[in-house]
Amino acid sequence: MPNPTAAMLVIGDEILSGRTRDANMYHLAGLLTDAGITLTEVRVVSDDTGAIIAAVNALRGQYDHVFTSGGIGPTHDDITAEAIAQAFGVPITIRADARALLQAHYDRAGLPLNEARQRMARIPDGARLIDNPVSTAPGFTLQNVHVMAGVPAIFQAMMASVLPTLTGGQPLISQTLRVNRGEGDIADAFAALAADYPDLSMGSYPFTQNGVYGTNLVIRGSDLALVSAAMARLTQVFGAP
Amino acid sequence: MPNPTAAMLVIGDEILSGRTRDANMYHLAGLLTDAGITLTEVRVVSDDTGAIIAAVNALRGQYDHVFTSGGIGPTHDDITAEAIAQAFGVPITIRADARALLQAHYDRAGLPLNEARQRMARIPDGARLIDNPVSTAPGFTLQNVHVMAGVPAIFQAMMASVLPTLTGGQPLISQTLRVNRGEGDIADAFAALAADYPDLSMGSYPFTQNGVYGTNLVIRGSDLALVSAAMARLTQVFGAP
Repeated sequence: MPNPTAAMLVIGDEILSGRTRDANMYHLAGLLTDAGITLTEVRVVSDDTGAIIAAVNALRGQYDHVFTSGGIGPTHDDITAEAIAQAFGVPITIRADARALLQAHYDRAGLPLNEARQRMARIPDGARLIDNPVSTAPGFTLQNVHVMAGVPAIFQAMMASVLPTLTGGQPLISQTLRVNRGEGDIADAFAALAADYPDLSMGSYPFTQNGVYGTNLVIRGSDLALVSAAMARLTQVFGAP
Repeated sequence: MPNPTAAMLVIGDEILSGRTRDANMYHLAGLLTDAGITLTEVRVVSDDTGAIIAAVNALRGQYDHVFTSGGIGPTHDDITAEAIAQAFGVPITIRADARALLQAHYDRAGLPLNEARQRMARIPDGARLIDNPVSTAPGFTLQNVHVMAGVPAIFQAMMASVLPTLTGGQPLISQTLRVNRGEGDIADAFAALAADYPDLSMGSYPFTQNGVYGTNLVIRGSDLALVSAAMARLTQVFGAP
């Protein structure tokens, strides 16, 4: 059975303007690879309701899972929850269990649960809450869409509660051979080897170090024996690392 | 006149598998913001011809410029140039001027211009070459699509030659006020201010430092006087930084 597929939707003007360098895509990519879920596409869109709706509807129909980051805080530019509700065509209201979590949190902190903070309890109908051990305000899962915060510490904590609920596949195994030759030198032999292993994915990534061209040859697949066999042949062709 | 719009297409299994953390999106976002070109969407797709064609055709029709990174090297997994040619429905052949650049480069290096390296001279009909001062193999511009390498040093060098050829708009100006209060505390007043300035974009980005919650309030726009006026009012409301 092929591995489940996934897409990520990063929401935020701060990423597109270059103010902030996104960290969540790299984190999610590593997690999903280890879990045997194939991250196939990522989109980054601005804080625009129409753009969020279009992207989430395109992605949720095409992939087994969609993970979103950003736009679920208390301020006026946090429009993700509303956009997701619209994308699914379901109502969104302040939900009692989410509100109770926030009430307890702000009571402990001696802060009022004002109107802005209550916005973080707005959850589309039919969604399951995602625990936020960092700052309480929950994310949510609606069907195959997992809606999480953009702050990396919170995104990571939310993914830690979401991931065990997903059915993964075979983890993607990756082995690398580093050769001190340019890509153009190794391309033919590497392509021939790749053609012998249609079930594996092989990529080459050039680097320069101290003015010398080199290439990292990477073999990826979910069958460890097959990856290792291909790597043994690759090492035979290009010499030990 | 509104600023020109742009999208980026990142091509590469190594990003989606979490092997490599993308650096080009952040670099491009900063460059375009300074040039007054609005980066509106980013997509990341795998080394798959169909996925590249679908994304590039969706984006080039929707935005003034599309910038791609990755997949233009000499190895079998470098399929971007072919995919772009297919997306535009134009032939792709080894072009004499691109081949001559490579020939001179490899002659100097005492290396053969073998078949794999000649692949890097394959350019879709009608494209303009993009200079590569790092490793010679050129990128290309076909209509509004700028096709560049994924290696960050080369991507950056190519953007340095592409950017001066583009007509920019008003640079996006961004001013930030850091307040030592949580987002939920400032949300109402911040939203009210944002409503007074429909031509500006305002965002809030929470942080924690030494266990204290704080928020960076960011005002963005292309009219310096307007941004400064809004920032003066923001500072009045929330106190000096």
